[in-house]
Amino acid sequence: MNDSESNLLKKSVGDIGLVESVDYYNNQSFIFDSGEKIPELSIRYETYGHLNPEKSNSILICHALSGDHHCAGINSVKDKKPGWWNHIIGPGKPINTNKFFVICSNCLGGCQGTSGPGSTNPETNKPYNLNFPNLKIIDMVRAQKLLINHLGIESLYAVIGGSMGGMQSLLWSIEYPDMVNRIIVLAATARHSAQAIAFNEVGRSAIIRDPEWNNGNYQISEGPNVGLSVARMMAHITYLSNKGMEDKFGRSKKNESHSKNNFDVEFEVESYLRYQGQTFINRFDANTYLYFTKAVDRFDLFIKGKSLCDTFSNMKASALIVGFSSDWLYPPAQNRELVHAMLQSGKKATYAEISMDLGHDSFLVEAPELYDLVRVYLK
Amino acid sequence: MNDSESNLLKKSVGDIGLVESVDYYNNQSFIFDSGEKIPELSIRYETYGHLNPEKSNSILICHALSGDHHCAGINSVKDKKPGWWNHIIGPGKPINTNKFFVICSNCLGGCQGTSGPGSTNPETNKPYNLNFPNLKIIDMVRAQKLLINHLGIESLYAVIGGSMGGMQSLLWSIEYPDMVNRIIVLAATARHSAQAIAFNEVGRSAIIRDPEWNNGNYQISEGPNVGLSVARMMAHITYLSNKGMEDKFGRSKKNESHSKNNFDVEFEVESYLRYQGQTFINRFDANTYLYFTKAVDRFDLFIKGKSLCDTFSNMKASALIVGFSSDWLYPPAQNRELVHAMLQSGKKATYAEISMDLGHDSFLVEAPELYDLVRVYLK
Repeated sequence: MNDSESNLLKKSVGDIGLVESVDYYNNQSFIFDSGEKIPELSIRYETYGHLNPEKSNSILICHALSGDHHCAGINSVKDKKPGWWNHIIGPGKPINTNKFFVICSNCLGGCQGTSGPGSTNPETNKPYNLNFPNLKIIDMVRAQKLLINHLGIESLYAVIGGSMGGMQSLLWSIEYPDMVNRIIVLAATARHSAQAIAFNEVGRSAIIRDPEWNNGNYQISEGPNVGLSVARMMAHITYLSNKGMEDKFGRSKKNESHSKNNFDVEFEVESYLRYQGQTFINRFDANTYLYFTKAVDRFDLFIKGKSLCDTFSNMKASALIVGFSSDWLYPPAQNRELVHAMLQSGKKATYAEISMDLGHDSFLVEAPELYDLVRVYLK
Repeated sequence: MNDSESNLLKKSVGDIGLVESVDYYNNQSFIFDSGEKIPELSIRYETYGHLNPEKSNSILICHALSGDHHCAGINSVKDKKPGWWNHIIGPGKPINTNKFFVICSNCLGGCQGTSGPGSTNPETNKPYNLNFPNLKIIDMVRAQKLLINHLGIESLYAVIGGSMGGMQSLLWSIEYPDMVNRIIVLAATARHSAQAIAFNEVGRSAIIRDPEWNNGNYQISEGPNVGLSVARMMAHITYLSNKGMEDKFGRSKKNESHSKNNFDVEFEVESYLRYQGQTFINRFDANTYLYFTKAVDRFDLFIKGKSLCDTFSNMKASALIVGFSSDWLYPPAQNRELVHAMLQSGKKATYAEISMDLGHDSFLVEAPELYDLVRVYLK
């Protein structure tokens, strides 16, 4: 590395620097909650910091629907941006890598190195596509558990996640009560509202009605790009807030002269959304999008015939649930519902609501108030 | 008509019964606000009730984006449903056709008989498609004015409309202050928020990126049906409310067994949305959808360098502005903003907010509170 590269490194990544993702391979078949199975399992993950001799300082980060395992540092000095949660993970940062061993894995069903619909089925030498089993959030958690076992860790100091990552954190505390000491759950819900399902269904319809989808059988480099980008554009609106969009874009125009009816970009917000859709197709797979949205739609902690309190009856972890005032996808009432049920179930749970205008995605942005909460809760 | 047809008629339409739509043809070229023009103008409309000898009892109804000129009665005894506002228009109903002469025309740019992108350009004998001029709400109003003149009406007792129809009502009172005595504006706004533009842009992207759109050149019977139905599915969510959807659908399932990953309908709300998308393509044209959404996005009563008050300075009509508590597309604060500006401008304006859970589309559904307001305001 030359001097300018070294400077770039320091400047662009803060303190973690270069990290390499690792593949964990398990040649045992993995059985899904549906009873279906795949003959082998691969999980791509990254770690930051060092596991202490007592193996008691591990923090598992669970990513959201459009996230991945690369949450901090850079993978190459050419990277223009660090991992998606770089501002909160690092030496001296709220999730302090001088103190904690931080693990983040690409979710089961994903498209960034972990087994998913785009992976090759070793039994057929073809991609699974829609032959990949029905996926639930609990399957993601059970796959992560195999990775944690593989790393020789028997107890997690904390499991932390936002949105779909929050669902995983919740299930970790329910499914493996003896392994989890605390969870931090950001912008999550016990189950999707009809409106949240409806938005996902529009995205899925855009994909499965794109002729390029071809019932899930497409080359990864091609595929239903139109459908996937439309799905992403729409979903992105639900991740922001009305006020946040108004403050950022309002009615600003990209181009004042619009005599032509070509329906090109006119307003700034249109340009922004199209960019979001376009960049998404370069990093995400449409079948994974279908599987992930179905997994979150089906997630439901209100077990049939039981109350939400009963769901948490075996949980041993303490929980910090964080809601964001402007989140209208999983609004604060849904975040609070989780805490109330935990408290009624006699668990150690606390709720914090952060007043921010950035909507559901607030958990992803720099927020000193969130930093303080996380730092203190991990003490 | 046989007996059973006659019974069907009474049962299904209330009191207006069979109505026939009429075409007004104007062989003069119509000049748009952009300066562009079309060589002739057709407007399809319906009327209910009778014009009094003084020609002082006319009410113009302006339809919303996905509406049309058929707002009351039935066009055929085979019709399964009457016009979209049949419950409020009729003999003895709040918009009382025993008393008023009610007119509703298909908007300029539309696809139900009025000149629009799908109409044949007499100069080329081909559909205008994207050669149809840039369209603004003011163009719709100016075209309606020609129809009103043609009907020999010099003064309108009232102009009434919801959503895009509310925008037209507002412009009627501003553009033709001497012709309008009162306006009733339901679920409308002075201009779109960034979020409202963003939703429309997703719908437009779904259409223009559908290969069948073909830059607007398609056969009306074919066209970008996938894009148009996805656009409609998404828009439909914005017309409802979170609570309304929760009450109606919640997490009810259409089909309990879902072992197959075919991404077929699973939840009731998915089935409902797909049906909305599918039926829309049978009655609406994708190019009209593009033109109409652009017209509402561009609508902006905050004239550059002027306040909203100045916009209403010449208005002579009195105004009833109605907001709906659960409307998050044009939320009550935006409805109230109109009234405040009118009042500050010294106009006779009043605001009513109706507490309903049905979102933006509340103005379209049966609501006794709205009936009372309209009935009293038209006295």
